[in-house]
Amino acid sequence: MKKAICLLSGGLDSATTLYYAKHQGYQVSCLIFDYGQRHNKEILCAKKIARHAGCDYKVVRIALSWQGSSLLDKTMAIPQHQKINPHEIPTTYVPARNIIFLSFAASYAEAVGAQNIFIGANAIDYSGYPDCRPEFFKAYQKTLERGLKTGVGGQPIKISTPLIQKTKAQIIRLGLKLKVPYDLTWSCYQGEKIPCGTCDSCRLRQKGFEDVGAKDPALKI
Amino acid sequence: MKKAICLLSGGLDSATTLYYAKHQGYQVSCLIFDYGQRHNKEILCAKKIARHAGCDYKVVRIALSWQGSSLLDKTMAIPQHQKINPHEIPTTYVPARNIIFLSFAASYAEAVGAQNIFIGANAIDYSGYPDCRPEFFKAYQKTLERGLKTGVGGQPIKISTPLIQKTKAQIIRLGLKLKVPYDLTWSCYQGEKIPCGTCDSCRLRQKGFEDVGAKDPALKI
Repeated sequence: MKKAICLLSGGLDSATTLYYAKHQGYQVSCLIFDYGQRHNKEILCAKKIARHAGCDYKVVRIALSWQGSSLLDKTMAIPQHQKINPHEIPTTYVPARNIIFLSFAASYAEAVGAQNIFIGANAIDYSGYPDCRPEFFKAYQKTLERGLKTGVGGQPIKISTPLIQKTKAQIIRLGLKLKVPYDLTWSCYQGEKIPCGTCDSCRLRQKGFEDVGAKDPALKI
Repeated sequence: MKKAICLLSGGLDSATTLYYAKHQGYQVSCLIFDYGQRHNKEILCAKKIARHAGCDYKVVRIALSWQGSSLLDKTMAIPQHQKINPHEIPTTYVPARNIIFLSFAASYAEAVGAQNIFIGANAIDYSGYPDCRPEFFKAYQKTLERGLKTGVGGQPIKISTPLIQKTKAQIIRLGLKLKVPYDLTWSCYQGEKIPCGTCDSCRLRQKGFEDVGAKDPALKI
């Protein structure tokens, strides 16, 4: 059975990506990052999703002790009700986050003989992070081909971004078809009991469910 | 004063690179990685070198729990007396090591406003690791330009590899001129009291000092 690594954040996109990878016939191992987020709710959700999908997972703990993002630094405010402008990078941007996550995924993939790394990045209904765009993944792919043993003498490890050009509504439609347990997913940047409904992430999610005409099962928790 | 990050392993190459960056007028912050090496001697050496250079440093702890390298796994043997063949990657190769190290350096550099990342990689007298070759760094440079905020809207962070095309002897000659404290550096893959003298790293170092006609001050410890 072909093997893959899937980055799992606990959110809607990565959960959909995991179910997509499974549907494509991969035996998937999940990587979950504990990188000093404001709350660990999304980590708990990621673990539940991996278990629900019947996949093994590893939690990688990394300390980004230099901060510089409102997603890490509790003294900074999370932007609320802000107009989402893909040409302006919000304070929730974490420097090099996907560069770091993919570096661990590449190491893990090569160590266990996985051919693919799945990541649920999206460049349509997104917050404008540069490390979510197709041109970034294209460059990273080249880096893996040149920097890994498998890239030099074997089958290069492929970064797969199945959601990259999908709208949030298209992602949700795909996920509903694949029976993704959206009730287990957590998208809100805050870690309260219920999603705040006003941060970028909540609003992109809400709009997606509205466009599909479905109810967000996470709101029932 | 222009800022830079320097990856510091405790070995000869990275120490030379640090002193080179300082000589170029950079205010350098060092990044030292505790990634589950067989021994922590090189970490202690790296700290001493940073202090000797008058630079601040951070130690980043990462757990590569998937192993797959004789540098991490004490049940695997370190190759001794082996013919160094740049076309064959030895078991000391750690999957994606420089990809991971540079990802943290990129995050740190962007968070503190550093324009350069210095890394002492070398593709001449080296062990054949793919992530030490110029084409790898070229691809990674592109990844940073496309994945970082500074790459999209500002001054891209540059990866500097001043030793990449130098022989070990040329590196040592440069280092002696820059007064690098080679007595504080540690190159041996083993963590014994004195260098083993037979691993790839020891032999490349020995040959370098021989070619220069200098004594290795680390051997006096």
